[in-house]
Amino acid sequence: MINQKLPKMWYGGDYNPEQWGPEDWKEDHRMFKLAGIDVVTINVFSWALNQPGENTYDFAWLDETMDRLHAEGLGVVLATSTAAHPAWMAKRHPDVTRVDFYGRKRTFGGRHNSCPNSKTYRKYSGRIAGKLAERYQDHPALLLWHVSNEYGGYCYCDNCATAFRVWLQDRYGTLDAVNKAWNTRFWGHTFYDWDEIVLPNGMSEEGEGNVSAFQGISLDFRRFMSDSLLDCYKIERDAIREHSKDVPITTNLMGTFPQLNYFDWAKEMDIISWDNYPSLTTPVSETAMVHDLMRGLKDGAPFMLMEQTPSQQNWQAYNSLKRPGVMRLWSYQAVARGADTVMFFQMRRSIGACEKYHGAVIEHAGHEHTRVFREVAELGQELMQLGDMLLDARSDARVAILYDWENRWAIELSSGPTVELQYASEVHKYYDALFKQGIQADLVSVEADYNQYDIVIAPVMYMVKAGVAQKAEKFTAAGGTFVTTFFSGIVNENDLVTVGGYPGELRNLLGIWAEEIDALPAGQYNQIVMKKPFGKLEGSYNCELLFDLIHAESADVLAEYGSDFYKGMPVLTVNAFGKGEAYYVATSASAEFLQPFLKKLCEDRGVEPLIQEVPPGIEATKRVKGGRSFLFLLNHNAENAAVILGDGKHRDLLTGSIVQGTVELSGRGVMILEKA
Amino acid sequence: MINQKLPKMWYGGDYNPEQWGPEDWKEDHRMFKLAGIDVVTINVFSWALNQPGENTYDFAWLDETMDRLHAEGLGVVLATSTAAHPAWMAKRHPDVTRVDFYGRKRTFGGRHNSCPNSKTYRKYSGRIAGKLAERYQDHPALLLWHVSNEYGGYCYCDNCATAFRVWLQDRYGTLDAVNKAWNTRFWGHTFYDWDEIVLPNGMSEEGEGNVSAFQGISLDFRRFMSDSLLDCYKIERDAIREHSKDVPITTNLMGTFPQLNYFDWAKEMDIISWDNYPSLTTPVSETAMVHDLMRGLKDGAPFMLMEQTPSQQNWQAYNSLKRPGVMRLWSYQAVARGADTVMFFQMRRSIGACEKYHGAVIEHAGHEHTRVFREVAELGQELMQLGDMLLDARSDARVAILYDWENRWAIELSSGPTVELQYASEVHKYYDALFKQGIQADLVSVEADYNQYDIVIAPVMYMVKAGVAQKAEKFTAAGGTFVTTFFSGIVNENDLVTVGGYPGELRNLLGIWAEEIDALPAGQYNQIVMKKPFGKLEGSYNCELLFDLIHAESADVLAEYGSDFYKGMPVLTVNAFGKGEAYYVATSASAEFLQPFLKKLCEDRGVEPLIQEVPPGIEATKRVKGGRSFLFLLNHNAENAAVILGDGKHRDLLTGSIVQGTVELSGRGVMILEKA
Amino acid sequence: MINQKLPKMWYGGDYNPEQWGPEDWKEDHRMFKLAGIDVVTINVFSWALNQPGENTYDFAWLDETMDRLHAEGLGVVLATSTAAHPAWMAKRHPDVTRVDFYGRKRTFGGRHNSCPNSKTYRKYSGRIAGKLAERYQDHPALLLWHVSNEYGGYCYCDNCATAFRVWLQDRYGTLDAVNKAWNTRFWGHTFYDWDEIVLPNGMSEEGEGNVSAFQGISLDFRRFMSDSLLDCYKIERDAIREHSKDVPITTNLMGTFPQLNYFDWAKEMDIISWDNYPSLTTPVSETAMVHDLMRGLKDGAPFMLMEQTPSQQNWQAYNSLKRPGVMRLWSYQAVARGADTVMFFQMRRSIGACEKYHGAVIEHAGHEHTRVFREVAELGQELMQLGDMLLDARSDARVAILYDWENRWAIELSSGPTVELQYASEVHKYYDALFKQGIQADLVSVEADYNQYDIVIAPVMYMVKAGVAQKAEKFTAAGGTFVTTFFSGIVNENDLVTVGGYPGELRNLLGIWAEEIDALPAGQYNQIVMKKPFGKLEGSYNCELLFDLIHAESADVLAEYGSDFYKGMPVLTVNAFGKGEAYYVATSASAEFLQPFLKKLCEDRGVEPLIQEVPPGIEATKRVKGGRSFLFLLNHNAENAAVILGDGKHRDLLTGSIVQGTVELSGRGVMILEKA
Repeated sequence: MINQKLPKMWYGGDYNPEQWGPEDWKEDHRMFKLAGIDVVTINVFSWALNQPGENTYDFAWLDETMDRLHAEGLGVVLATSTAAHPAWMAKRHPDVTRVDFYGRKRTFGGRHNSCPNSKTYRKYSGRIAGKLAERYQDHPALLLWHVSNEYGGYCYCDNCATAFRVWLQDRYGTLDAVNKAWNTRFWGHTFYDWDEIVLPNGMSEEGEGNVSAFQGISLDFRRFMSDSLLDCYKIERDAIREHSKDVPITTNLMGTFPQLNYFDWAKEMDIISWDNYPSLTTPVSETAMVHDLMRGLKDGAPFMLMEQTPSQQNWQAYNSLKRPGVMRLWSYQAVARGADTVMFFQMRRSIGACEKYHGAVIEHAGHEHTRVFREVAELGQELMQLGDMLLDARSDARVAILYDWENRWAIELSSGPTVELQYASEVHKYYDALFKQGIQADLVSVEADYNQYDIVIAPVMYMVKAGVAQKAEKFTAAGGTFVTTFFSGIVNENDLVTVGGYPGELRNLLGIWAEEIDALPAGQYNQIVMKKPFGKLEGSYNCELLFDLIHAESADVLAEYGSDFYKGMPVLTVNAFGKGEAYYVATSASAEFLQPFLKKLCEDRGVEPLIQEVPPGIEATKRVKGGRSFLFLLNHNAENAAVILGDGKHRDLLTGSIVQGTVELSGRGVMILEKA
Repeated sequence: MINQKLPKMWYGGDYNPEQWGPEDWKEDHRMFKLAGIDVVTINVFSWALNQPGENTYDFAWLDETMDRLHAEGLGVVLATSTAAHPAWMAKRHPDVTRVDFYGRKRTFGGRHNSCPNSKTYRKYSGRIAGKLAERYQDHPALLLWHVSNEYGGYCYCDNCATAFRVWLQDRYGTLDAVNKAWNTRFWGHTFYDWDEIVLPNGMSEEGEGNVSAFQGISLDFRRFMSDSLLDCYKIERDAIREHSKDVPITTNLMGTFPQLNYFDWAKEMDIISWDNYPSLTTPVSETAMVHDLMRGLKDGAPFMLMEQTPSQQNWQAYNSLKRPGVMRLWSYQAVARGADTVMFFQMRRSIGACEKYHGAVIEHAGHEHTRVFREVAELGQELMQLGDMLLDARSDARVAILYDWENRWAIELSSGPTVELQYASEVHKYYDALFKQGIQADLVSVEADYNQYDIVIAPVMYMVKAGVAQKAEKFTAAGGTFVTTFFSGIVNENDLVTVGGYPGELRNLLGIWAEEIDALPAGQYNQIVMKKPFGKLEGSYNCELLFDLIHAESADVLAEYGSDFYKGMPVLTVNAFGKGEAYYVATSASAEFLQPFLKKLCEDRGVEPLIQEVPPGIEATKRVKGGRSFLFLLNHNAENAAVILGDGKHRDLLTGSIVQGTVELSGRGVMILEKA
Repeated sequence: MINQKLPKMWYGGDYNPEQWGPEDWKEDHRMFKLAGIDVVTINVFSWALNQPGENTYDFAWLDETMDRLHAEGLGVVLATSTAAHPAWMAKRHPDVTRVDFYGRKRTFGGRHNSCPNSKTYRKYSGRIAGKLAERYQDHPALLLWHVSNEYGGYCYCDNCATAFRVWLQDRYGTLDAVNKAWNTRFWGHTFYDWDEIVLPNGMSEEGEGNVSAFQGISLDFRRFMSDSLLDCYKIERDAIREHSKDVPITTNLMGTFPQLNYFDWAKEMDIISWDNYPSLTTPVSETAMVHDLMRGLKDGAPFMLMEQTPSQQNWQAYNSLKRPGVMRLWSYQAVARGADTVMFFQMRRSIGACEKYHGAVIEHAGHEHTRVFREVAELGQELMQLGDMLLDARSDARVAILYDWENRWAIELSSGPTVELQYASEVHKYYDALFKQGIQADLVSVEADYNQYDIVIAPVMYMVKAGVAQKAEKFTAAGGTFVTTFFSGIVNENDLVTVGGYPGELRNLLGIWAEEIDALPAGQYNQIVMKKPFGKLEGSYNCELLFDLIHAESADVLAEYGSDFYKGMPVLTVNAFGKGEAYYVATSASAEFLQPFLKKLCEDRGVEPLIQEVPPGIEATKRVKGGRSFLFLLNHNAENAAVILGDGKHRDLLTGSIVQGTVELSGRGVMILEKA
């Protein structure tokens, strides 16, 4: 449980009372009560208010706010206000502003705007975090610390360059090691002095769109920037911890946000929290996958849904309203996948600047007689009813999909073989094939313990870090099913190719050799032709993007290419390895292939779907806790849908009714079922 | 009349004799006479020639030119030559060059290149304007002063930043007022010192394509830049006026050019002049609308067509020739809508640099035996014949459409609800619906006197400035018909939302409440379903883009949405208000809806079309003067077209013939009819 | 012959042993032998290795490498290593790094990264070239000097600006002459001091995509930059020549690379070499054309294919494998068109940085059991067999197509009449029409001797340099056939229009006057309607892009426009001129027109195709030498194709067999035939 003080699914969100006055506050609290809101996040962007000058702090407004919120029965997620530096700081200490990709110095503006290696920023952000902790550590309203906000953005200033060189010295020890790791004899890039190393950007090694002349440098720069921003987090966290010993600390993450290695970050966070902003066209299985990834950051621990919009966003191209029922549906989707809070951005809509057309619990109309507020209030009642029942419940998935930010960086930095390869999309293809069949999966780090799973899937495992191949072998040898794909086993953690034949370190496990890798333009296909039926797989399936030309060594060939000059070469292989099996899918396969393929693998290991037949648009998930098991059924269709349950009677925890056999879910409806 | 010295429709244009020699000049004058050309604009880009050094002026060439032109019987529009600074000035006084959106200092090049807040530029541009006025104030050829050329372009240098702070102090008085106007507590942007304020650009608050984090700052910056450039104009104008007391002064505008608030500019100009460069695909009704807007800048006063091309342009993607007859047709379109001059860019084509493939009266061939010259000469004869008949004639439209640059800025800066909303396009939709039905409209400022009209249309009146709602109410109460649309009444002049329910200050007048605003991607539609016939409106019409979800309060519902979850909610309402009516169109309606809709409104107020049936491609306009009424019929088709006239006989002023009943307009033909 | 030491078609390519170790070297040599590789290019990117510090040189690795290569029987193309400066140099001498188009200073990174006017770069690049020459001039392995690599890229630093002013003084003598050449009275750009001239870039006169306000300035800047980079080449060349008197010197070019005027460069090179990297969709006739252009650089002298990939590239969007047989086919295509070497980038694939997914003879697998290696080895055997037979053989084409970089610059800088006009595409249209009919052509400079040809084609001869019109007249008068097209004869070498009527200086020769030039958007067409049959031309053909509205003066009209207002005006004319004829094609004609049109012209001059019927996908070319004639037949289809030979028996030099009548070429097959 996040904090024992509030033993229920937290309900609330970002609140900026400093933009309003006493009359508004009264209305806020009246409406919070109507809506069952019990927690608010404050002080996210108030640094300028808290510290109006270099040596002046003024927490009077915050004292009053904390007291008022407590008096009104609300718990507080207290942010440290450091996500945008004050204007005076940018003016007096230009080192706090960033230098952009083209070496241009920024002035004051925007948010998430501080150079992570600025001494000024580090000093003052740490100092204010400490002051807040000292002042509010024992405040009865305090539930959680929220450090900064949505960390992100890179800086290319001289301070960052200096820090990069120190970081490299720490990582590599010697310049020789750096030169080797980056293969600098290529294009005569040998460095003879640390000071010769510059940051990779638009004025040196990189171009827009992850183009780089030196993948090794660019990869290390991403690691360094993720670490630099993490250091900023740690400075604030440590300053808080000095005073506030027990209240948990988080910062809000952003799903598959590419810039930060969240597995590293998770180690420093007490609880994961994240902001869920799907666009109009985001597939529901992609949102589900990202929830699962956030749950995977801390080995399956429940997380916080820190932000979502009650209805509209403002920064999409087309900001459609959430249709009636969708806000509730997506809230339960988060809960179904491990969220122990349902929180919004924001409580009351601002009247000026760029987020004034972002949805809020209290709209510009200012009263409760709106569709959006009614939906918020209805959900509030339901969450109240659920009490602490679901808190701390976990997944018991038997399938794991590996996800790795460093692998993503390396793949997307690669010059060739195709510009179309998107790591997260390939991962999603495998995830979606399971999702569509009601098979639960965890998204985990390559460093996770594979042995708790029956099946481990590693889509495009391009980068194989030290020890990972051995782990995969051990897991398989012990009886596991390991699956990987085309363009895997190519490089080590410095993006240096493992020579001798792809898939390099994975070759022994997979029993194949990939001689060449063909690329075809978008819209051109080859085929996966099954040699004989495999589960429901039979005949021919489309494949695209990349095509490994492989030779089976110890592996058995299950399917061959159907056309082009490599027609007849293996495209799907399985290698018996100890007590287990290792599969290689040599191309990017269609959903028509992946669904029966993964189904067969699950059947072989006795992994059962949560429901036997998954109608289109239906999502099924499970959380378990202390012997209880909660099956979530979510209907993403606007129309009703029928779902056939497993044997026995089930209680619908939202209505209390007992159901069995076939249940009818209303359009955008939700059920939480427990065996009765 | 612009200048009594030349009591006819001026005919001529830009002329750069300094690029040529005496032999060419002789040919020029021979051909000017052949073409009936009687006025030329000179000295537009001759600063470097006039002032070869810091303290050296040399007007010898200009003296000779003025005298020669006069001797040849030509009148002169004399420009001040300040639209491009000399190279030596950029070299010696770098403050004259601009800093761009990304904070990069420009060197020497291009035109319209001077920082509007450069002390050097202001000093020298004012000085040369004064010197020219002193020297040529009494020159017999002088007809009009032409300050600089096509003002535009923003600068982001430190001098501009300093000037911006002064401008803000003038506007707001205190920093507190600025902080409030910009809602700076959002994202902790509170300013504690004027010096902390920086210009909003790509290094601070803005991104490309009107993206801004702080709309209030960006809006004020646009006001400030429009004012800064206007100050440059005023410095020159005042310097001229010191010597030349009576000759009118203008500068050439550019239609709906987004960067400058031309209603502010018009107040400082003696006569409006503008440059008309439609592209290949510009609808003729859009050109018509822009002419009307230029006429509206000074409350209906005639304006000058300062530039158009005789045939080709050079800067479009595809620079097609104007088809035979089109130059004449478009010239009369300008005249029909209020122009008292027909002028070209340019007299003789230059042989080098970027405008050498822009059409000219005298082409590179250099003689009169060209199609283009023949058409120019034929029009010259016609204009000669028309004499002063049309000069000073005005529109007597009874329908007004509001146009507002500040509203446009605010709409296009908005983050959400859709990227597709273009203010000028929405205005054009209403204009075009009237145009297609032969109903004349004026385009006027929100500050105009509404009471001279029967119907006032305010498309997307997003920003409601102080006093405007009251004006609209007064107008309607007195019997007027007021029409506005979706996304109206949202913000005040600082882009701060009027809370309590949209459409804010217009709610009382319109009798509705807009609870939510939905946005759909391009190509997705809802429907306007009429509850009962309204004029010729009946059944269902497509609508798109944005969809206000409104509730009728005092208003009557004329139509409802046809689909989606807000099916059945009002989409078209009318509110009886005093003696008048206020309509709300809650979405972006199709032309199929708007034409019968506006027709009905006009019928209700007895506003008659100029001709009863408007065939496709036919444009009808009217100018009136001293009891006379001139009906222009323009055929934009390549083929002939028949038009049914109203009762009685009409004289065609171009041919002298008497027509009645149905007249046949030749392809691209023009008639100017007066009741006989 | 390039170097008598190796009297055969050289076979090999780029080799970077410094990225590998002794064990790898052993393998390399074993495999080189297997593949028949006899020459390698080394030291391309080893500057940092050769000169680890300001005053330190270390050639030990290179000494060893040279000796080892020689010991292994390999010849060496020795590069000077200056294509990327060392990191220490960028750090200590920032003048070596470039300033980009937006005035931004680059730091260290990439390659081809040195400012061509940097004193540091010129000093150190010349010095190391000299040191290498001194050291290795007599090394037995040395075959050829390879200066730097793929010169290219512009710089906009202050040193370049200074150098530009000196270059202008050399070219023009006086500022007056510069002002006149650039037509600076336009937009008041008159320069009164050399120092006022700045480089044309994004901060002055230019925008992205060849947009310029002053074409004359931009044109001279391109000339200046081409010269500046050529100066860098010459500095190294001269430093080499001081020591190494006889070994030929080259640098590798890049086909139609737009930035450098290769005709100027060719004069300074002993032999042309170039790098051939067609993309997946490059037409085979375009590759053929570029080979012919490279041959034309030195009046038909054989050239070196310095680089091609054995299979994949890495920097295309989709890096498809070369299908089986394609590497051999394209190698012979180069040979067929004048190459005396077949060389690859590269020998062994690097393991890190941006070219690791570029194909190589030795792939990452590291052994010879790959498809790619097998194909390389098979070709190696064939080339060995061919011996010196083809060396120094030349083309005897009777048709020339003019190609001119300065003309291209001017066309692409032009503002108007259309953005679609691409010089190289228009040239290719004419080339392709000949190619498809088996008619051999040379691509030559406008300065070439036209009299060796029967037909000279000058597509879009927009710029007519001094003396060129006279040359064309002389050639035609003497009995030649001259062909040019729309938008020709417009400007002189400073991009100043020749007034009096297009096509200016070509008007006398062509006997026409082009009054206007229409442009239509992509996808809109007019028609070429033949007045009577002309060869196989009859009826109507599509044309597009630009449409000169011409009047025949002395010319005969062969075809007229088929639609629009210029329907019936001439579109194809021929002017009898002395003993010859001059054709004008007034628009961009379709292939359906151009093929029979050029066929007719050839027939009229007795120019015979190499084979009478050219099946689709078949390429025919000829090289001649000492009375022998080698006919190359290349089948670009994946399937077999039949080709009908001329009379008599032919020997296939690759197989030794005798063929006659109809021969069957296998898919991607090649024949080299000599009359038996």
